[in-house]
Amino acid sequence: MITLSSDFGSPYPAAMKGVILQQSEARLVDVSHEFPRQDVRAAAFWLREVLPHFPPAVHLVVVDPGVGTDRKALAVRAGDHAIVAPDNGVALPAAHSLADDIEVFELDAENPASATFHGRDVFAPWAAIIHDAGVDALAVIDGVTPTDDYAIERFPDPVLNAGSAEGEVLVVDDFGNVITNIPGHVLADKDVLRVGDLQVPVGHTFAAVGIGAKVVTVGSHGNVELAVNRGRGDEAFSLDPGDRVELSW
Amino acid sequence: MITLSSDFGSPYPAAMKGVILQQSEARLVDVSHEFPRQDVRAAAFWLREVLPHFPPAVHLVVVDPGVGTDRKALAVRAGDHAIVAPDNGVALPAAHSLADDIEVFELDAENPASATFHGRDVFAPWAAIIHDAGVDALAVIDGVTPTDDYAIERFPDPVLNAGSAEGEVLVVDDFGNVITNIPGHVLADKDVLRVGDLQVPVGHTFAAVGIGAKVVTVGSHGNVELAVNRGRGDEAFSLDPGDRVELSW
Amino acid sequence: MITLSSDFGSPYPAAMKGVILQQSEARLVDVSHEFPRQDVRAAAFWLREVLPHFPPAVHLVVVDPGVGTDRKALAVRAGDHAIVAPDNGVALPAAHSLADDIEVFELDAENPASATFHGRDVFAPWAAIIHDAGVDALAVIDGVTPTDDYAIERFPDPVLNAGSAEGEVLVVDDFGNVITNIPGHVLADKDVLRVGDLQVPVGHTFAAVGIGAKVVTVGSHGNVELAVNRGRGDEAFSLDPGDRVELSW
Repeated sequence: MITLSSDFGSPYPAAMKGVILQQSEARLVDVSHEFPRQDVRAAAFWLREVLPHFPPAVHLVVVDPGVGTDRKALAVRAGDHAIVAPDNGVALPAAHSLADDIEVFELDAENPASATFHGRDVFAPWAAIIHDAGVDALAVIDGVTPTDDYAIERFPDPVLNAGSAEGEVLVVDDFGNVITNIPGHVLADKDVLRVGDLQVPVGHTFAAVGIGAKVVTVGSHGNVELAVNRGRGDEAFSLDPGDRVELSW
Repeated sequence: MITLSSDFGSPYPAAMKGVILQQSEARLVDVSHEFPRQDVRAAAFWLREVLPHFPPAVHLVVVDPGVGTDRKALAVRAGDHAIVAPDNGVALPAAHSLADDIEVFELDAENPASATFHGRDVFAPWAAIIHDAGVDALAVIDGVTPTDDYAIERFPDPVLNAGSAEGEVLVVDDFGNVITNIPGHVLADKDVLRVGDLQVPVGHTFAAVGIGAKVVTVGSHGNVELAVNRGRGDEAFSLDPGDRVELSW
Repeated sequence: MITLSSDFGSPYPAAMKGVILQQSEARLVDVSHEFPRQDVRAAAFWLREVLPHFPPAVHLVVVDPGVGTDRKALAVRAGDHAIVAPDNGVALPAAHSLADDIEVFELDAENPASATFHGRDVFAPWAAIIHDAGVDALAVIDGVTPTDDYAIERFPDPVLNAGSAEGEVLVVDDFGNVITNIPGHVLADKDVLRVGDLQVPVGHTFAAVGIGAKVVTVGSHGNVELAVNRGRGDEAFSLDPGDRVELSW
């Protein structure tokens, strides 16, 4: 199985699929091609949330603002999984979430056909090669070299105090739920808290409050999420990715 | 085969796919993950239009504004098909369209991992279980209980008079075609009618009128549709889902 | 393998998939369902770029502003591939890109169930039939007739002078990159040129310029592309599909 993730929208992902299917019978499963454009952090976050739900697979990830520069092409082995991605840190949070033992390899990527579409010309062919060779054989594939020099995307740490927590918005999902970097445990035993100056109820679910009302909850990812029952939290709280969030109680 | 439908956008559907693929070899086919957010009626309409074109399958449907409440999880058997969905009525119009004999079952859904993502933690695992057991075996799967207490989404009835028909907009499709609840037979033998105060030609196809012109036609679903040849009917008629429509002649 | 391409958005493509899967076990791969609505030229461009990356397949293409008129339904054999599409020219550029030897056939399409959804009622069933019969057998399938009367979408030719090139915008991709009809070779040996009145550097990659800066490059399709490193070229250059572009040096 090869999963595909990118910020390509449409139709560029199909070129990657065609390239893979030219050389492999692998089952293909799209994770997303709608990651926020060129946003390595957002992609790293979503991959960390989604990839651990998959059975062993090769995960092709192309969010690549440095395409055409000399950033390396990597394969990261994480247990029975491998992530094929540019060396910009995007793969590491998911890799660590998939397995305790990870190994990082540089992939030979000389002379791609295009300077602007390495997803098609570098990463897709490598995903097919690694899939067909098997993740266990990664280290012995020709053109694969171990490396310990690679980028790691790190999510910002929240600041947790006795009566407050300061963090930031990591991503906004397609429902408008505002996902922060503040761990959900700060909500334990609280019925209400302040988001900035606003008093907002804490709920176990969106439906803990009336339709259209604001709620602070713990999302499926385990982080604090600012939401509106059947509405959009990003609009109600006027928050975008990267914005600072302060909770107090 | 398992089909997947939701209002999740991206990338949450991939988590459901990963969960299914952890336990099943089922073929996966996306119906849509772009249903209007939290709009049970729109999803019920589209499923009724699309699912009958599929061969026997398990249809996973997650449009679930009541996630986290005590609404039940259901499996609806409709002939050789099964629809796995929350108990909010979304599955019933499609089920009745798929088969005359339907049976409704409650699915055991205690203690899901997340209070906000039952698609991943309740419905996807059940879809895989039912797929692998076979729709015929639904009634004997552990945790599946017959029920006759369930919600049914009912589309509003139009009012048909001798010289007019009153209805409402059910959905607007991605072309901007305005799909009403008025049955297409009211257009029979008419060349022109009034939509509100506007005189509009009746056409067998969009191309019955000039490019950019308004037309009243019968859509592939059999209902009256308000459209513009190569343009957007919703903008030309200023109509949105839920709006009232009066045709007269 | 059957690939699917349309301007349908969602969920109409699923009805086509259901119809195919009722009669065929074919592997299905989406190319795109987000082609610009009713834009035959844009679809023809993208198909020419993407389909040649696929292994032999039947390619179902439905961008069909003439649905319901008497335009023919076609199957175009291009080497080991076949493209099933309406007779509006959309398939021809890709066919010529796939193979030197092409043959065009008219498909019998009497009495489709719907006047507005031939994708589901005419083209999808034909794609399944041709897939299961095999592209080699196209000519002998019942209802398939050779024709040499068919539309061809032709991209506008650029005007190349000693010190300038005049062309137009063919499409804008999802990154905002402005793809012109001017061949990339005009950039050879140039470090800078004028786009209209603007001095813009020529780069081998987007990253040849600073973040947010304009760059003229050769896209993966071989044409001149107007871009912004990590930004949107269409906004920076104020260019949309069909707009005139003049490069000079």
